[in-house]
Amino acid sequence: MSAHTANLKTSVLEDLRASLGNKVTTDDAVRSARGHDRSHLPWEAPLAVVQCASTEDVSATLAICSHHGVSVVPIAAGTGLEGGANSTAGSICLDISGMDKILRIEADDLDATVQAGVMKSSLNEALAQHGLTFPVGPGVDASVGGMASTGASGTTAVRYGTMKENVLGLTVVLADGTVIKTGGRSRKSAAGYDLTHLFVGAEGTLGILTEVTLRVYGIPQASSVAICSFATLEECIAVVQATLESAVPISRVELLDDVTVDAVNRYSSLGLPVMPTLIFEFEGSPANIAEQSETVRGLVSQHGGIGWDYASDPEQMARIWRARHDALPAYTALIPGSSTWSTDVCVPVSRLAECITLTKADTDNEGVLAPIVGHVGDGNFHLAFVLPPGDDDVLAKAAAINNRLVERALSMGGTSTGEHGIGLGKTASLVKEHATAIPVMMAIKNALDPQGILNPGKVLAAS
Amino acid sequence: MSAHTANLKTSVLEDLRASLGNKVTTDDAVRSARGHDRSHLPWEAPLAVVQCASTEDVSATLAICSHHGVSVVPIAAGTGLEGGANSTAGSICLDISGMDKILRIEADDLDATVQAGVMKSSLNEALAQHGLTFPVGPGVDASVGGMASTGASGTTAVRYGTMKENVLGLTVVLADGTVIKTGGRSRKSAAGYDLTHLFVGAEGTLGILTEVTLRVYGIPQASSVAICSFATLEECIAVVQATLESAVPISRVELLDDVTVDAVNRYSSLGLPVMPTLIFEFEGSPANIAEQSETVRGLVSQHGGIGWDYASDPEQMARIWRARHDALPAYTALIPGSSTWSTDVCVPVSRLAECITLTKADTDNEGVLAPIVGHVGDGNFHLAFVLPPGDDDVLAKAAAINNRLVERALSMGGTSTGEHGIGLGKTASLVKEHATAIPVMMAIKNALDPQGILNPGKVLAAS
Repeated sequence: MSAHTANLKTSVLEDLRASLGNKVTTDDAVRSARGHDRSHLPWEAPLAVVQCASTEDVSATLAICSHHGVSVVPIAAGTGLEGGANSTAGSICLDISGMDKILRIEADDLDATVQAGVMKSSLNEALAQHGLTFPVGPGVDASVGGMASTGASGTTAVRYGTMKENVLGLTVVLADGTVIKTGGRSRKSAAGYDLTHLFVGAEGTLGILTEVTLRVYGIPQASSVAICSFATLEECIAVVQATLESAVPISRVELLDDVTVDAVNRYSSLGLPVMPTLIFEFEGSPANIAEQSETVRGLVSQHGGIGWDYASDPEQMARIWRARHDALPAYTALIPGSSTWSTDVCVPVSRLAECITLTKADTDNEGVLAPIVGHVGDGNFHLAFVLPPGDDDVLAKAAAINNRLVERALSMGGTSTGEHGIGLGKTASLVKEHATAIPVMMAIKNALDPQGILNPGKVLAAS
Repeated sequence: MSAHTANLKTSVLEDLRASLGNKVTTDDAVRSARGHDRSHLPWEAPLAVVQCASTEDVSATLAICSHHGVSVVPIAAGTGLEGGANSTAGSICLDISGMDKILRIEADDLDATVQAGVMKSSLNEALAQHGLTFPVGPGVDASVGGMASTGASGTTAVRYGTMKENVLGLTVVLADGTVIKTGGRSRKSAAGYDLTHLFVGAEGTLGILTEVTLRVYGIPQASSVAICSFATLEECIAVVQATLESAVPISRVELLDDVTVDAVNRYSSLGLPVMPTLIFEFEGSPANIAEQSETVRGLVSQHGGIGWDYASDPEQMARIWRARHDALPAYTALIPGSSTWSTDVCVPVSRLAECITLTKADTDNEGVLAPIVGHVGDGNFHLAFVLPPGDDDVLAKAAAINNRLVERALSMGGTSTGEHGIGLGKTASLVKEHATAIPVMMAIKNALDPQGILNPGKVLAAS
């Protein structure tokens, strides 16, 4: 460490401690625990972790860090999959997880404002007391701020949209500590540049989200689930297309490939046919979900679907959903000691069967175990590489398959990531996908963060 | 005109003619016709109009104009209401209306790509041949590029969202003539900054939209309409709230105030009760619309609704919709020779009754005729000032009422414009609404248009 670096480190820590007291920690365990997300991507322990409780704490931290030109990396739940919250040496980790207050719930307007560290599960517990729900988000419990920052979505996007369609307004702290508000509480606005959508999905590289105003929804009167199988992926996706064209407002349609079905059969003794499988969810009044499910059942039958296990009571619905919810533990149970690496792409639905088929051929050819699940109503699917412990060869093969998957999705008019974001893992993919737009993204980054201190190296690699 | 200005004018026109030939016109009638939108706001004839047929034409024009530092003002249908397309003296008018090609319709993926000058009506004619529709947009026929540029919405936003939720990707020409692509065709993407949403609603101040990729929808199997009246605005809005909370997927809910009902009664001999009135539209299968309408009818009845005129055949539906569609001509028929000035705000639905009541009191107090219609499922409503010919006193009163309306909406957590945009007319309102965010908007404007040649004076007044 040079004398200059040592001096900088000392003076930043002094200033942070003077302003934020014991919210600043240099404890090794905390720096390690808060220094990374769930990906396999590189990280280094940050210089210190600031455990923020408020927008003011975030603002004070950024004012100090920008004064010293020191980088800041935000993290809340740390459930990301592309290294978006991974710290770098010498940076300050902004820990948002303590910002867990639900600030207001307005049942009459179907909106709510929360601090960015509020977990989706906590939000839904609070909303349930008002007969409300926030259905958007990944399978894993995540923070609202993290979901907004990555433009997350999950299984219900086919009905409710992604975070992009559900964030009404934000409080954001800029690189120099300035606090701004974007959007608002009205359902729509044509007032000026849509900064809300600019910060949503920017992964903390343009500003730090501290408060989020969300659309929320009434809890559906009733819901039901059906599971069915298909001899081919093409039939399976044809049913999804027919369902979308029919405008039946399904709330979920999840694909499980044959490898996934085999894994969950072994793990959870489900006895499902080892074939491409769809799980549909319907929401509405009892009469309406009956009509929806009958319409979709008809489409499934027309397209060669096999079986139609239907349930509308909670216990039987949970039984059907186990096939999807147990997928991740079922995968790792296939190889003792293994971990998974879940990647995602999204393509126009008409190309989905072809994209999945070619990807499965690639994984088969390389001998890499990589089951597929997908939010197929959006054309979005995940390849989950099952990585044997310490096997660098498989990891290298997976990386190459992942690169080819992105190329394939882009060649089909799709995107390199439907919902996991760019983070560290897909910066090269972003350049391929948005070659013409990268200079505009860079210009905006430079305008809002001229020192490049906000989550450096993420999204725009050269930033 | 100074010698410098005259020389600049000559050299810009020479360069444009050399590059774009007879697409460049200095004809007085064309310069006047294409120099303004439908508002009462100031405009001056541009130096010349370039009738663009392609992205390349727009790019060539911008390359020349940026070289000379000459401003560019885009216009397509010219149906704007806030002066967003009004030219300034010495500027070049970019006429996009000739860019009217539908580039692709993909029924299997429910998306379409069009040139920015395509009219909504033309798009829907083409889509209808595939059993598809694009339901978003204002009552007046408008261009897709104009609708995207202002973040337009209209009556169906309660079901389908606004342009923001329905633009998947864009081709944009930047200030220096560079052509970029944003977004894509996949339903969702978490790849990099959401530039699509930044350009949608930026009113041509950050770049010129030349091609737009849209989500499109299957034509509903069936639809139906119902009209009902209420003794009070409070009851009327309470039904709207109850409907939204019930999650009945209404496709439209339009409010007509008593003044509007009186006007359309006179104009179209409708004989409706002169009271706050709602028109609901339902879409789906025949069984589903029956269920939806029965649910809403029950809510209407619970909240003191009077009457329930219901129709599901096209002729009777058109009869009911006349009350809404005839509103504008009915208004101007109230005062011979008058014109209308339609303004809009949007508030949380829980504040809507109060906001409308206070606004009606203000117009009554000032003695200004200003009926109200509203897309009340979004909390959005329009005050239509009926302006007697040449009456500057009423115009001044209307301007003051409009300012107070914006203040009222902002004080209620609403926005200064739900769908008409900022243009020239609401630049001061934008500063009030987004005081903390304006510097960020300015930073982005300066980063993307350092010379300030793109639609100057719009959105950000000082830009």
